[in-house]
Amino acid sequence: MTHYRLTPLADSLPSTVPFVGPETQERARSRLFDARLGANESVFGPSPMAASAMAETQMWKYGDPENYELREALSDHYGILPEMVMIGEGIDGLLGYIARLMVAPGDAVVTSQGAYPTFNYHVAGYGGVIHTVPYADDFEDPKALFAKAAEVDAKLVYMANPDNPMGTAHKGAEIVKAMETLPDSTLLVLDEAYIECAPEGTALPLPMDDPRVIRLRTFSKAYGLAGARVGYAMAVPDLIASFDKVRNHFGMNRAAQAGALAALEDQTWLRSVQARVAASRNRIATIAIKSGLRPLKSATNFVTIDCKQTHTFAKKVLDEMIQRGVFIRMPMVAPQNRCIRISCGAPADLDILAEVLPSALRAAEKG
Amino acid sequence: MTHYRLTPLADSLPSTVPFVGPETQERARSRLFDARLGANESVFGPSPMAASAMAETQMWKYGDPENYELREALSDHYGILPEMVMIGEGIDGLLGYIARLMVAPGDAVVTSQGAYPTFNYHVAGYGGVIHTVPYADDFEDPKALFAKAAEVDAKLVYMANPDNPMGTAHKGAEIVKAMETLPDSTLLVLDEAYIECAPEGTALPLPMDDPRVIRLRTFSKAYGLAGARVGYAMAVPDLIASFDKVRNHFGMNRAAQAGALAALEDQTWLRSVQARVAASRNRIATIAIKSGLRPLKSATNFVTIDCKQTHTFAKKVLDEMIQRGVFIRMPMVAPQNRCIRISCGAPADLDILAEVLPSALRAAEKG
Repeated sequence: MTHYRLTPLADSLPSTVPFVGPETQERARSRLFDARLGANESVFGPSPMAASAMAETQMWKYGDPENYELREALSDHYGILPEMVMIGEGIDGLLGYIARLMVAPGDAVVTSQGAYPTFNYHVAGYGGVIHTVPYADDFEDPKALFAKAAEVDAKLVYMANPDNPMGTAHKGAEIVKAMETLPDSTLLVLDEAYIECAPEGTALPLPMDDPRVIRLRTFSKAYGLAGARVGYAMAVPDLIASFDKVRNHFGMNRAAQAGALAALEDQTWLRSVQARVAASRNRIATIAIKSGLRPLKSATNFVTIDCKQTHTFAKKVLDEMIQRGVFIRMPMVAPQNRCIRISCGAPADLDILAEVLPSALRAAEKG
Repeated sequence: MTHYRLTPLADSLPSTVPFVGPETQERARSRLFDARLGANESVFGPSPMAASAMAETQMWKYGDPENYELREALSDHYGILPEMVMIGEGIDGLLGYIARLMVAPGDAVVTSQGAYPTFNYHVAGYGGVIHTVPYADDFEDPKALFAKAAEVDAKLVYMANPDNPMGTAHKGAEIVKAMETLPDSTLLVLDEAYIECAPEGTALPLPMDDPRVIRLRTFSKAYGLAGARVGYAMAVPDLIASFDKVRNHFGMNRAAQAGALAALEDQTWLRSVQARVAASRNRIATIAIKSGLRPLKSATNFVTIDCKQTHTFAKKVLDEMIQRGVFIRMPMVAPQNRCIRISCGAPADLDILAEVLPSALRAAEKG
């Protein structure tokens, strides 16, 4: 006798995981990774001020459900109203809320083939129907995305700029131009998780309250706080207010709130990380070229590397890297899955990469 | 032109908050509270081992999406399979997942009039229809709850034992007996958030994989980690596995995972907190009696106090306490709302309480 009755929608969903974590792989290998370069985390860590703020937090207290101080700080940082900012449990959590607010069973959404799978996970979780367009030369294709949105009457169109998993980016102005064809009843969900790693001109040059778009940013990447789970959305106040209908109001970790606030205040640390990310990207590219591979130009904290052969080959390279103690990931969908993806690392991590990549390639070529 | 289209369900929901946080009130008063005794937090704090574990966590890494170590530790602690344990973002987060998994628009659920409002918030958020039964002499009434569940064909029946906001508890064996009338297709959602503060015999004396019930516990109360947001559910493995369909897999804070693990391992600290909670409850009761009020017997880390007059009077007492710098809360629904609710505090907090309560009462009686 089972006393629980799932909804028909929940019953239809697989018990899936969007990503396997590195710890799962470490347990399977019974060995820790020597270099953790797969999840686009920031090995350079958070600002020491953020670390202190977290360590000093009185954890017996619930976090402030309004995230007041962090919202105020972000509103100062961007010169916008606090009512245009919503804090959530990482961009993943915010994507879940967006899907919940807008996607009912059968509703159409649009994304790129092989783009960030957690968006798809949340949309499918609410019964949405996902329509995709291909990448164009390893870039997301805003014109094609918006044309597809018009074709299927999409409620949401998701785009990451810079893109994950390819690391490529459009100039913000190009996206603005493409938005001329964004349908009137489609919301652009613009994931700018990697914006702090991107060149000047990548951020969308539109007011944060442009009604056509909701922007998502995070403390998980350049700010080095992936473990804290702090993302934020920026959009028109009425859309931002709607998160209060559904969010877990007491869902934020109190230390994470304090850590993100301190991290935002330490822009000097951010600049030092940006410099180290740039240096690391260059070195990863050099290592790849030395092995005869083609690194893609990256606007993120990782470098996607074209292995210039089949997916099967790239997957073998990845497996050989994992076996040699280097955690990396790869795009999941053709034709991007001819590539592997390597997150920026400290010099010691990249020494390991430089040593391991040639032998992983040789093994993949043999096998 | 608005580009976003909420679902009809989302559109119908208010932009509400289940609770106003103490920080919001502090901002409104432009003054910090002298004693924070309203949110049933544990002023005694977490184990120092938990604090160290959190401070030492490398926050640039995402948390393990499987929560492997904490699940294993809880499975050891209870002598159950890890597949019977799900970790989530506090009991609040887990209640949200349960509602999402089981509640479709129009589905019936049952709870007590004036029980934990966050359960209702999540159920309403998925379009569920809430049916209630009254408390019986300030106790939740399992027989009435289960009879109502049968009457309305409820998918879920929610009960907290010990109860919040009244602090009362049934013996677990009494609930087992009442469960003879739990309908075959109703799942009992048993919130045992305060179980570590309750007398022996309060926990439900049934195997954790009894198919009739899902149990919820937390590190927010006796373990002193409210700010970390770590709760867990225990139930049959197939029900536990279904959380993977919908949860935010990377939603857990990495330091929180480590802190909860260390807190669980420090049962000596837990016992010391239990003793301090018991002493604090006694002193709160004494203070209340001295002022002519009637403290309810508590199985939690708070004491609910019958002000022996109308709701209007109790609300005045609460307002006067707030004005005097003591954060407390009260039950929201009649007839329980003739009471105020005071969380356990350190001796210094209770010194303030002892000083403030008589004058707050005098002011309320005048006003």
